[in-house]
Amino acid sequence: MTNPSAGYSLTIRVEVPTRTTATSALAAAVECSGAPVTAVAVVDSNLDTTIVDISCDTTDEQHGKVVREALTALEGVVVRDVIDRTFALHAGGKIEIAPKHLLRNRNDLSRAYSPGVARVCQTIAKDQDEARQLTIKRNTIAVVTDGSAVLGLGNIGPTAALPVMEGKAALFKQFAGVDAWPVCLDTQDTDEIVQIVKALAPVYGGINLEDIAAPRCFEIEARLRRELNIPVFHDDQHGTALVTLAALQNALAVVGKKINEVTIVVSGTGAAGNAIIQLLKVRGAEEIIACDINGVISRGSGHNDPHHAWLVENTNPGGFTGTLHEALVGADVFIGVSAPNILREEHIAAMASDAVVFAMANPDPEIDPALARRHATVVATGRSDLPNQINNVLAFPGFFRGLLDAKAIDITDSMLLAAADAIASCVPDSQLDPGFIIPSVFDSRVAPSVAEAVAAAARTP
Amino acid sequence: MTNPSAGYSLTIRVEVPTRTTATSALAAAVECSGAPVTAVAVVDSNLDTTIVDISCDTTDEQHGKVVREALTALEGVVVRDVIDRTFALHAGGKIEIAPKHLLRNRNDLSRAYSPGVARVCQTIAKDQDEARQLTIKRNTIAVVTDGSAVLGLGNIGPTAALPVMEGKAALFKQFAGVDAWPVCLDTQDTDEIVQIVKALAPVYGGINLEDIAAPRCFEIEARLRRELNIPVFHDDQHGTALVTLAALQNALAVVGKKINEVTIVVSGTGAAGNAIIQLLKVRGAEEIIACDINGVISRGSGHNDPHHAWLVENTNPGGFTGTLHEALVGADVFIGVSAPNILREEHIAAMASDAVVFAMANPDPEIDPALARRHATVVATGRSDLPNQINNVLAFPGFFRGLLDAKAIDITDSMLLAAADAIASCVPDSQLDPGFIIPSVFDSRVAPSVAEAVAAAARTP
Repeated sequence: MTNPSAGYSLTIRVEVPTRTTATSALAAAVECSGAPVTAVAVVDSNLDTTIVDISCDTTDEQHGKVVREALTALEGVVVRDVIDRTFALHAGGKIEIAPKHLLRNRNDLSRAYSPGVARVCQTIAKDQDEARQLTIKRNTIAVVTDGSAVLGLGNIGPTAALPVMEGKAALFKQFAGVDAWPVCLDTQDTDEIVQIVKALAPVYGGINLEDIAAPRCFEIEARLRRELNIPVFHDDQHGTALVTLAALQNALAVVGKKINEVTIVVSGTGAAGNAIIQLLKVRGAEEIIACDINGVISRGSGHNDPHHAWLVENTNPGGFTGTLHEALVGADVFIGVSAPNILREEHIAAMASDAVVFAMANPDPEIDPALARRHATVVATGRSDLPNQINNVLAFPGFFRGLLDAKAIDITDSMLLAAADAIASCVPDSQLDPGFIIPSVFDSRVAPSVAEAVAAAARTP
Repeated sequence: MTNPSAGYSLTIRVEVPTRTTATSALAAAVECSGAPVTAVAVVDSNLDTTIVDISCDTTDEQHGKVVREALTALEGVVVRDVIDRTFALHAGGKIEIAPKHLLRNRNDLSRAYSPGVARVCQTIAKDQDEARQLTIKRNTIAVVTDGSAVLGLGNIGPTAALPVMEGKAALFKQFAGVDAWPVCLDTQDTDEIVQIVKALAPVYGGINLEDIAAPRCFEIEARLRRELNIPVFHDDQHGTALVTLAALQNALAVVGKKINEVTIVVSGTGAAGNAIIQLLKVRGAEEIIACDINGVISRGSGHNDPHHAWLVENTNPGGFTGTLHEALVGADVFIGVSAPNILREEHIAAMASDAVVFAMANPDPEIDPALARRHATVVATGRSDLPNQINNVLAFPGFFRGLLDAKAIDITDSMLLAAADAIASCVPDSQLDPGFIIPSVFDSRVAPSVAEAVAAAARTP
């Protein structure tokens, strides 16, 4: 399944003897080594020598070396530099701070800074709510992580998590004009994280928790929601749940089934799985079977932690016991937020007719989507290179835009449902199709729709 | 001393009957009420009515009302809106977050975010130092406050301090390209502040402590310097000290005196006073007399805290006892970082000939500079509306630029001295003059000079 990808693209600068066929020979050499060429540019040229930048997608580091060797093997070609375009994009970070006003002279300075700023400070000291009007708090949220569950990489720590948080901040701004700042905490102690986020809160109009391992993330979120007067969103829970619900609503419309009549098997009971099940219940799903690494969760299957207890009470009403594979027999919907390649083709074949399969483990899904498509009517994944990408980018920018616009102090189920409906309705009924159940992350209507829906829900008591 | 100032300027929108003398009548009315007009602009006009925006400086809120009434009193004039330009500048905050790259399509997204970002994260997980290259850590510092000693306003708390920290961040970027982020902490507990700043450190290449009350600020700074591997600067100490030293070196050159031969009286032993005395000692000053609210600090004058003990050991070698006013008799230099209007004209008259007076209490100096100038040769203040403004803006942007460029992990005396020399030398000898001992904060040569000097000092073991 490893194809050359844009995430692993190189720009190779080579020096070639000047002749009319120079670039075509280079492009041919690169493509013959299995790397699709994405750009060729002559940078400089004189009578003897031509400098060419040739860009291509590769599969991995080893493949990059193969491409380089293919070029070096050409008569007269010298490779001067190989730039990994992903690393180039990250150099020095992906966001920066921009002053909104240029301070041109002493008068500007006396308004923006001392002495004029003193009056602004005093206004806020008298009424803290004025900070929502007179400071960055109006449009700024924190993206908080402890680096304990980053992407599929696990516990890589706060410093290594920073590129993800910067990327998130860039997406918040580009898609919804929200100023988001990375807060990567060098502690994985629940009490300490809660205490620190509370201490940081004066600057922020909202908190987005990110990539914090379960079950710690549940307690952190619950305590912060109780103790702060700004909304606290855990993207791995709420974001994933509402995008999944949006996709499921459209998928069920495609296959003509109702959410309160289908059997839904959810694989994975971490942050995402838990939140998905909770939101599906709120929307009316009745027959949900949750599976963790030990199989179906049922009375007697478990540990004593409160999340497991909640699952026992709220899923599997028929008291089914067995394995994930057994649970899938006759099921209408599979939702995977668990681990790569845990299903085989026959498990999908055993599902009900017109099955819906969301295999969202990242980067490798629970089952090869091509195999799933042989038996299921609708197949979705988290991958950008396949149809039906279930991606949180559809949710979090617009969601926080709505929260900030409404000066929301909390997040409610009705906001999550409204956001899911807003995303789902960006695919018009006339275009609904097994290959198009969820809008593109680049659909510019999504974030404003979500924002409006969330703000409206926030304003409705 | 309250003159109309740019920090209190208004833009008043008025509707007037259309006639050729409309704007001159408005301008006259405003100026007759004591408010200098800074701009007049016709916004819209038809046969009957003209809309004019008239901007002016005022002294305070009451004065603004007087101006408004003067306009309303004019025949046919209706005031539609009064905008306080300072508050308008602060609306929604003074900084924002800007993504460095627009993500146009899935390929961009796959490099900036998942899956491409995973390789960048893994590189940092293997070698944390790579964060200085591959993340915002390379160019980003935190501006940290607990809101306990903000400007001259005192303990107004973290939320009300935010406009100052945003202003600081804007100055960091404009003057030296440094990305600075406000961290306003909702705690004033020393241990907690130290613990939180340590936990936040992964994202930052340096820490700028700001407006934290003494003596807490000393312990916080000392502990963070010991425990972090990024530089920790306390602007109220280091920034003020090095700019003061720069100004003093040039002032002494003007009056032809040597730093190791003069008697220097320092009023105020808080964060600034302490740091100034320490840096003057490093530069070779021998005769420093420190005064606090109880008079001259000498053996037996004091409390038992370590900073007072340090002052007893390191100042006042002659064992002088008495009041601030007594200490000034025959002194060459007065440096005030204390309280407004504590000196009268006769105290300056009693100083040595060619006296140097730095009256830096903010916003009102220790003595009216006009009175001081009758007896002292060089007079400087912290005010932007008078000559010789001793302003930290000259120091902090360039200082951190240098620290980040050199990837410094600590701050040394040699960096502080080098920065002071760099600022001082931005006033060429040929232009040195009692009214020009320190460059303008808008002198664009200052920050690069300071940066280069600090980076060079950082690289010299």
